[in-house]
Amino acid sequence: MSDDVSPALNIAYLGPEASFSHQAAIEVFSPSTNVLHPIPSFSAIFSAIQSSTHDFAVIPIENSTNGSVVQVLDLLSQCGLDSSAAYPDLEVVAEYYLPVHHCLFVSSTSTNPDIRTIYTHPQVWGQCNKYLSSNFPPNQVERIDVGSTSAAAQLVSRDGNASNAAIASKLAGQRHNLICLAENIEDEPGSNTTRFFVVRNRHQRTTGLEQYLSSRPNQKQKYKSLITFTIPHTKPGALADALAVFNQYHFNLTSIDTRPSRKRNWQYVFFVECEEADNGNTGSIDDEEENLKNLLTDLQKFTESLRHLGRFQDQLLREDGIHSKS
Amino acid sequence: MSDDVSPALNIAYLGPEASFSHQAAIEVFSPSTNVLHPIPSFSAIFSAIQSSTHDFAVIPIENSTNGSVVQVLDLLSQCGLDSSAAYPDLEVVAEYYLPVHHCLFVSSTSTNPDIRTIYTHPQVWGQCNKYLSSNFPPNQVERIDVGSTSAAAQLVSRDGNASNAAIASKLAGQRHNLICLAENIEDEPGSNTTRFFVVRNRHQRTTGLEQYLSSRPNQKQKYKSLITFTIPHTKPGALADALAVFNQYHFNLTSIDTRPSRKRNWQYVFFVECEEADNGNTGSIDDEEENLKNLLTDLQKFTESLRHLGRFQDQLLREDGIHSKS
Repeated sequence: MSDDVSPALNIAYLGPEASFSHQAAIEVFSPSTNVLHPIPSFSAIFSAIQSSTHDFAVIPIENSTNGSVVQVLDLLSQCGLDSSAAYPDLEVVAEYYLPVHHCLFVSSTSTNPDIRTIYTHPQVWGQCNKYLSSNFPPNQVERIDVGSTSAAAQLVSRDGNASNAAIASKLAGQRHNLICLAENIEDEPGSNTTRFFVVRNRHQRTTGLEQYLSSRPNQKQKYKSLITFTIPHTKPGALADALAVFNQYHFNLTSIDTRPSRKRNWQYVFFVECEEADNGNTGSIDDEEENLKNLLTDLQKFTESLRHLGRFQDQLLREDGIHSKS
Repeated sequence: MSDDVSPALNIAYLGPEASFSHQAAIEVFSPSTNVLHPIPSFSAIFSAIQSSTHDFAVIPIENSTNGSVVQVLDLLSQCGLDSSAAYPDLEVVAEYYLPVHHCLFVSSTSTNPDIRTIYTHPQVWGQCNKYLSSNFPPNQVERIDVGSTSAAAQLVSRDGNASNAAIASKLAGQRHNLICLAENIEDEPGSNTTRFFVVRNRHQRTTGLEQYLSSRPNQKQKYKSLITFTIPHTKPGALADALAVFNQYHFNLTSIDTRPSRKRNWQYVFFVECEEADNGNTGSIDDEEENLKNLLTDLQKFTESLRHLGRFQDQLLREDGIHSKS
């Protein structure tokens, strides 16, 4: 109907195929119009964006149960605009929350499975405890740990034995042509969520996120900013002073994290996310950007190596879970 | 010479024997007068202190390169004095900094070793890069990963093959009767340090730390406190307000960390360490305790589930590395 077809984008995610990162990438960038590439390590993904061999990357930053992905924080601390940054051109342009669901799969060749052995990642047993205790008690069914839920699905698919089952994501089951016997078998469906960042090269400013963003409810039009900094070690109290600047400009902190600076022992890099408070004013997006700019200027008085790594729509649905770090 | 011999204390540490936790336990509690017990998991160690089957435990909390030990933070968030705490009686009574050094070992039966294969934990290769590149370049010597440096030492000891070597701690080499060919082969000796907490049951108030503390330089007589809290999710800006209370009472933050609360998605437990600022006053320890008490009372206005988990001498030598989280 239209000639206005965008060229396919190259999207990087942490492999293997059918990983949770793959699932997140599919949900942000449709595979029917983009090319999704599994990349073997987080550092290779950051390099792919820095060198512009890929247009966007989808990177897990935090899980609601397990906390921050520290390898990603360490790589983010090497972004920014100063001369020593390894990935100075990376910027965060969106976030995405992926609910983590588990399914029970058997091989497609098993017409009437009599399950004797279940394979999955060791963390998953505890997450599906109620379902497994009722249906597959440990004294009747053997439980074997494997390295990932993806690997569990692959193992059951290759083996084809009717007595074997895997607990894995829906995507992993589909990729390996398995039959799903039960969906969402986790104890508290919806309670386990992984948050992802979508990143790109700030000089390329590639477009292609519009479809994803227009499909997301963001009625409040809230924007978060990711900011990293260190604190001068000669200024005790500087962290409290720095955080007071956010209050002063009516920005709430939605997240704060620390990692070793690796430049000096017991010195840390701070990762702060913030968004403008709901204070009844009806300021425009331009006003908010101006406020943020002033906040960053003031923040420099209390920090070193201050870097603004991106600004993006808040995708957390307030009715599902409220940010409460600030 | 004296009848005043204290009974032996039972000290818990994370096993196996010859681990870095074992080494830290030895340096705090002399094995000649105490009994040191390897315990297989952190949660079993916390239970041992809660149930008073052991007098003290020595627990790693943070590494200068790798950051916080998140499993320990998650267990510390289950301490404190409220009704839902799993380990309400645990308190932190000391800290200890262990420099992490690596040595090259061969089997005691090798009189003239011709090393063809080296075993160690995968993280160690990068830490000993300069020594290994000069002495055992990868094109001449095979490098094999094992689960721990302790396991590498054990493997070389059992095998007895003159062409095998292990990189491990001095303690692991001694335990397995290995011959040390080179000490402190890490790239930057002294740069990799692990910080430990010494914990006990607050009702037992077992003594036995005096010898350790009297042997430590603490000329400033500085005391740190460990405090945990959550932030009410209905109060944006509360974190900045909470941290301002520390400034108000002239306490510096020496450390701040967060972990998922596991009660509500995207709500976090904060771990803050603080100590009174050097502001020229010559207040007594009693004055400082009174100040801390008032600080905690004020802090309650901005926090939920506030818990004071212990107060202990600051053991960080200021000339080696300055705390700079505040």
